[in-house]
Amino acid sequence: MSWQLTAADLPDLARGATLLGTGGGGDPYIGKMLVEQVLGDRTITILDPDDLAVDQFVIPTAQMGAPTVMVEKIPAGTEPTLSLRILEEHLGRRADATMPIECGGINSMIPLVVAAETGLPVVDADGMGRAFPELSMETFAVYGVHGSPLALAGERGERVIIDTGEDDRQMEWLARAVTIRLGGVGHIAEYAMSGADVRRTAVPRTLSMALALGRAIRHAREEHRSPFVAIADVLSTTLYSHVRELCVGKVIDVERRTTEGFAKGRALIAPVAGTAREPFEITFQNENLVARHGGEVVAIVPDLICVVDHESAEPITTEGLRYGQRVKVLGISTPAMMRTPAALAAFGPAAFGLSEQFRPVEELAVPASAQL
Amino acid sequence: MSWQLTAADLPDLARGATLLGTGGGGDPYIGKMLVEQVLGDRTITILDPDDLAVDQFVIPTAQMGAPTVMVEKIPAGTEPTLSLRILEEHLGRRADATMPIECGGINSMIPLVVAAETGLPVVDADGMGRAFPELSMETFAVYGVHGSPLALAGERGERVIIDTGEDDRQMEWLARAVTIRLGGVGHIAEYAMSGADVRRTAVPRTLSMALALGRAIRHAREEHRSPFVAIADVLSTTLYSHVRELCVGKVIDVERRTTEGFAKGRALIAPVAGTAREPFEITFQNENLVARHGGEVVAIVPDLICVVDHESAEPITTEGLRYGQRVKVLGISTPAMMRTPAALAAFGPAAFGLSEQFRPVEELAVPASAQL
Repeated sequence: MSWQLTAADLPDLARGATLLGTGGGGDPYIGKMLVEQVLGDRTITILDPDDLAVDQFVIPTAQMGAPTVMVEKIPAGTEPTLSLRILEEHLGRRADATMPIECGGINSMIPLVVAAETGLPVVDADGMGRAFPELSMETFAVYGVHGSPLALAGERGERVIIDTGEDDRQMEWLARAVTIRLGGVGHIAEYAMSGADVRRTAVPRTLSMALALGRAIRHAREEHRSPFVAIADVLSTTLYSHVRELCVGKVIDVERRTTEGFAKGRALIAPVAGTAREPFEITFQNENLVARHGGEVVAIVPDLICVVDHESAEPITTEGLRYGQRVKVLGISTPAMMRTPAALAAFGPAAFGLSEQFRPVEELAVPASAQL
Repeated sequence: MSWQLTAADLPDLARGATLLGTGGGGDPYIGKMLVEQVLGDRTITILDPDDLAVDQFVIPTAQMGAPTVMVEKIPAGTEPTLSLRILEEHLGRRADATMPIECGGINSMIPLVVAAETGLPVVDADGMGRAFPELSMETFAVYGVHGSPLALAGERGERVIIDTGEDDRQMEWLARAVTIRLGGVGHIAEYAMSGADVRRTAVPRTLSMALALGRAIRHAREEHRSPFVAIADVLSTTLYSHVRELCVGKVIDVERRTTEGFAKGRALIAPVAGTAREPFEITFQNENLVARHGGEVVAIVPDLICVVDHESAEPITTEGLRYGQRVKVLGISTPAMMRTPAALAAFGPAAFGLSEQFRPVEELAVPASAQL
C-alpha cells in the first residue's frame, strides 16, 4: 500500500536505515537534514511496488563514496536531483518515480531529497535489501537489469555519464575512480528501469521496513520494553524473518583505513556473556562482512551483521565504532531472493574475497559470545 | 592550402610528430599502423584552417594515457571513431571534420584513424603545437574554447562523458582517473568547436609541419646531408623559427616511473662537446619539461626540448631513452601564441610545478654542452 511520508518520520527512518546499513551505507543523519531542509511541511508519496504501473519509468538515485568521507564532506544539496536530470537528458525520458538502490544508511534518504525537490514519488523497494559497498552488488543486476548508463553529479556541477553495457563491475570500477577524484563522494542515478522490472528485481518494501524498525525501537525505549524484542517482532512480519544475538560485549579494538574509496578494517569485541573469553571479530568493507568467534563463522554476507548499543539498540556504523563501547551484535537473515546462487555470486562471500561459503545465519551454531 | 595525405606519407609524418612530441606524446608507430590498416590506397583530406568555413563543426580526437603504457597496450582500433560518435550523439550534431589536439606523438595519427574510417577531413592545426601531458594544456582553452563535454571510449566499448563546464583542469582530473582504470590508455573526443574558433585558437599547419620535418630528415639522410641543417631549414619557414643545439653527448642515467597515469623522471647526458664535463639534465612528465646544464636552465617548457640520435636525428621518446645512446638535444622556439601570459599560465613552467620563469630559448645563453 502506498503511503505519505512526512518530516516527522525521518528520525525513525534514519534509525532503521542505519540498522539495515549493517555498519555502512553512510550515516543517514546528513541525508535526513537534506530532506528536512527541502521538504518542510509537505509529504512524499511512498509508492508500493504493487501500485507501480508496469510501463512507469523509475530512476534510482544514491550517493556513492566511503562512509568515513560522507560524514565529513557535506553535499551542496543540488547533486542528487542533478544526477537524475543528467540521466533523464541522456536517455531522453523523464522519470515517473525515483527509488533507493540501497535501503541501508544515507541511501534511504537521497531519493527522498530528490522526491522533495521534484515532487516525484519514491518506490518502496531497493536493490540491496541492506547496504553493500559496490554498485554492482544489486538484486537489479542479479535479475537482469543493468546499471548503465550511470549519471554522476559532483558538488561543483560536474556531470559524468558512464556506460559499460552489461558490465556492472566495470561501471562500478570507473564510477569509483571519478568519485575518488571528486573528493570521495559523488551522487549517482543508475539502474533506470520499468515498473515491471522493479517488481521482478527489487527487494520490496524495505523503506517501510526501515521506518517500522526505527519506530519500533523508539516506542520500546519510550515504553521501557526491550528494543531487541521490538526489532524481532517487526522482522517477523517481513522477508527478513530470523534475527539472532551473536555477541554482547565491549569494543576493545578497531582497525580502520580509508583506501581505494572504501572504509576497510575490523573490530574486536570482548564478550561479557556466557563462558566465552576469546574476542569476537567483525571484518568490514564499508559494511560488516563476516563475524567470527572462536575461529568459527557465526554470520556472513549477505546476511546482516548489525552492531548496536547493548541497551538502547541504537545502531553503530563502522565509522562510529569506538574503544569501550558496550554493544550487541545482531545477525539477521536476508530474503530468499538475496541467497540464490546468482545473488551470492554478486554479493556473497566470494565477491568480497572471503574464502568461506555462505551459510544462512539461522543454520549456524549460536556462538558462546551470545547472551545466555 | 588543403592537400591529400596517403599511406606513403605516414612514416615521414610519424618521424616529424615524434620530434614535435619532445619526448612524449606517445610513440606514433602504433598509430601509424592503425591508419595504414584502415586507409589502404585511399587518401585523407588535410584541410587548411583557411579553407574551413566559420560555421563548420570540428571535433578533435586523441588518445590519452602514459606513453610507457601506450607502446604496450595496443588499441582494439574501434575506440577513436567511437569517441567521436559518443560526442556527436551527446551533442546531437555531426562533425564536419576532426583535428589533432596535439601534433606531437601518436596524437598526430589518431585523427587520421578517424578520418580513414569516417571519410571526414582532418584540420591541419592542433591545440598544443607540440605534445603536453594534460588535456587542459591547450591553446584552445587558453583562448576561450573549453574541453567539455569530453567523450571517452574504452577498448571494451566503454562510453564515458565528462562535463565540467569551463573547468578544464577538473575535466583532465576526472578523465585521467577513468583512463587509469581503463588500463592506462583511453580514446577521447573533446574541445568541439566551430571553424571560426579553430582559426582563432588553434596552432595552424602543424600536421604539415610534422610531415615536412620528417620528410626533410629522410631526404637529408638519403643525400648524405646534415639532417640538423634540414630541420633548421624547415623550421625557418614556420612559426617555430629558432632551433639550437643544446647538448651532444651520451645518455648516462635515466630515472623513469609510471605514476598517477604519467611517465615521470629525468635523464642525464654526459656531454662530449666543448669543455663541459658536468652532466646535462632533462626533467620530463611524459614530455621533456626543462633542460639544465651547469646549474643553468638552457631551455624550458613550452619551448621544445627534443632528444635525437646524434647522427641520424631520429627522435627519441622518453620511454625510448637508454644508457649509452649517443644523442643531440635540440631546443626549438614555440610560436608567439604559445608564449603569452595566458598561455604560460596553462602550460608554462609553473603549470608543471617548476619554480623557474619561462625564458625564450633564443634569449638564453648557449650552454657549454653544445657542439662548438
